[in-house]
Amino acid sequence: MSTAPLQPDAPFRHEIRVGWGDCDPARIAYTARLPAFALDAIDAFWEHHLGGGQGGGWYHMELDLGFGTPFVGMSLDFRAPVTPRHRLVCTVWPQRLGRSSITFRVEGHQDGILCFEGQFTNVFTHAGRLETREPPAEVRRLIEGLIPSDAA
Amino acid sequence: MSTAPLQPDAPFRHEIRVGWGDCDPARIAYTARLPAFALDAIDAFWEHHLGGGQGGGWYHMELDLGFGTPFVGMSLDFRAPVTPRHRLVCTVWPQRLGRSSITFRVEGHQDGILCFEGQFTNVFTHAGRLETREPPAEVRRLIEGLIPSDAA
Amino acid sequence: MSTAPLQPDAPFRHEIRVGWGDCDPARIAYTARLPAFALDAIDAFWEHHLGGGQGGGWYHMELDLGFGTPFVGMSLDFRAPVTPRHRLVCTVWPQRLGRSSITFRVEGHQDGILCFEGQFTNVFTHAGRLETREPPAEVRRLIEGLIPSDAA
Amino acid sequence: MSTAPLQPDAPFRHEIRVGWGDCDPARIAYTARLPAFALDAIDAFWEHHLGGGQGGGWYHMELDLGFGTPFVGMSLDFRAPVTPRHRLVCTVWPQRLGRSSITFRVEGHQDGILCFEGQFTNVFTHAGRLETREPPAEVRRLIEGLIPSDAA
Repeated sequence: MSTAPLQPDAPFRHEIRVGWGDCDPARIAYTARLPAFALDAIDAFWEHHLGGGQGGGWYHMELDLGFGTPFVGMSLDFRAPVTPRHRLVCTVWPQRLGRSSITFRVEGHQDGILCFEGQFTNVFTHAGRLETREPPAEVRRLIEGLIPSDAA
Repeated sequence: MSTAPLQPDAPFRHEIRVGWGDCDPARIAYTARLPAFALDAIDAFWEHHLGGGQGGGWYHMELDLGFGTPFVGMSLDFRAPVTPRHRLVCTVWPQRLGRSSITFRVEGHQDGILCFEGQFTNVFTHAGRLETREPPAEVRRLIEGLIPSDAA
Repeated sequence: MSTAPLQPDAPFRHEIRVGWGDCDPARIAYTARLPAFALDAIDAFWEHHLGGGQGGGWYHMELDLGFGTPFVGMSLDFRAPVTPRHRLVCTVWPQRLGRSSITFRVEGHQDGILCFEGQFTNVFTHAGRLETREPPAEVRRLIEGLIPSDAA
Repeated sequence: MSTAPLQPDAPFRHEIRVGWGDCDPARIAYTARLPAFALDAIDAFWEHHLGGGQGGGWYHMELDLGFGTPFVGMSLDFRAPVTPRHRLVCTVWPQRLGRSSITFRVEGHQDGILCFEGQFTNVFTHAGRLETREPPAEVRRLIEGLIPSDAA
């Protein structure tokens, strides 16, 4: 990627306490924990925006709101080790909203250092089914307002 | 257990965000997540008391302070399902300190409801070795001050 | 526990590959992985006995057979570290069947050494509900045949 | 990707039992489990090729052989849901070996259906350090023999 992705002024932040149990014998967070942390951050993004805080997220979306957002792809670059020495601060924002898909960018920082960055693409579906659908109108509106743009 | 265990006035509290990924198809946190949550809470207890906050815990203990506390036993009772609807508030306090062992009590509440409770026993060891040892004097002092007593 | 629990002649065995990602910086399987391994072994026990092998287990029980077995308690003793050096062989058998509950014993061995042992108690429920029920008659019959007895 | 990647005739296969605890409330394996499964498969690939079977893998590599292979990137496409209905068969092979890096391809199939596919890039390091190095000569030889080529 030759140019840095556009970034919102104040992206959603989700803080994670990295613990002993997240680490492997190399004394850093095990690689498979990093996509798991990024997913937690996206879940928390939805909780913040859809649920009015606590109790929202994918669980609320699927059980109460009747739609889901299964993943179709992810890619991550690992820049620096993650350890329990500092909180992991994940920033999350939507980069692209298609007819029935959404792409998030997630960055993980510790102590100001970029540890990992990634893109995650979901499709919108009806809860409990596999066919894609368009997102609810209010979700489209919400997400469109959060995608950073050149003009902004 | 016929009588409730003694409880400190203000035990250490550790708050956990339960997410979609913690839940199983029965729509509640998967059973194996609950001891993992309790262990996170004990790790956070040590972080709070040994590390002056962030960056402490078992990682700091083992890598910087030169001792470890491997588990020799745990027992848990599950009282109510844990879900993403509310934060999981874990309270942690030491119940007993032996010559080279320590027993913690952990309780997990959501929205004021007791979801699980358990006892967890560790032994003190030198970092990277298996033989037990006595805890450092300042750790003994710290823990003794945190064990609730009848006389208190 | 002063006397060893009764043991069937040929208990169900479930083999687990312990990997790098299961280990913590002390270079042994992280404690919270051990109850998770034991639960995998119980799930595999049900798969073996209910599903005719692959595809059964709790998933089959809950989605196809209409009952579930949520946990009400567990207790584990940790006897020796678990590492990736050997496969972890878990043996599982029912110890007690009550009116609406079942208690399993799980033992984990590596290279012939007992690494952990535990008891796990479940209650029978209708799928998706919390009230307890009696197990289906054929499940009762199956389990009764697997509980080791003095007379055996 | 417009053309299918070259595939060896008989790539290394690693079979995973997907259980209830791997699944989320949508009744499919939780997305974060899929990169974890792929990593288990790569760990098992090394175990098979370096350790003469059991007991090898990243643990053996780091603790006994003195080198490590931290991840610098991964990308995955999710093609079909993973469930406990069938074993997950992961195939793993090296696609590219650079001066100090290696790229693996991992595919996960259930019942003959491609569920996910991904690329994973590691760098070679000295155990416990971060600077990259060239792989040991015998590892280079081994991997070169396993990379599928047009001419094959």
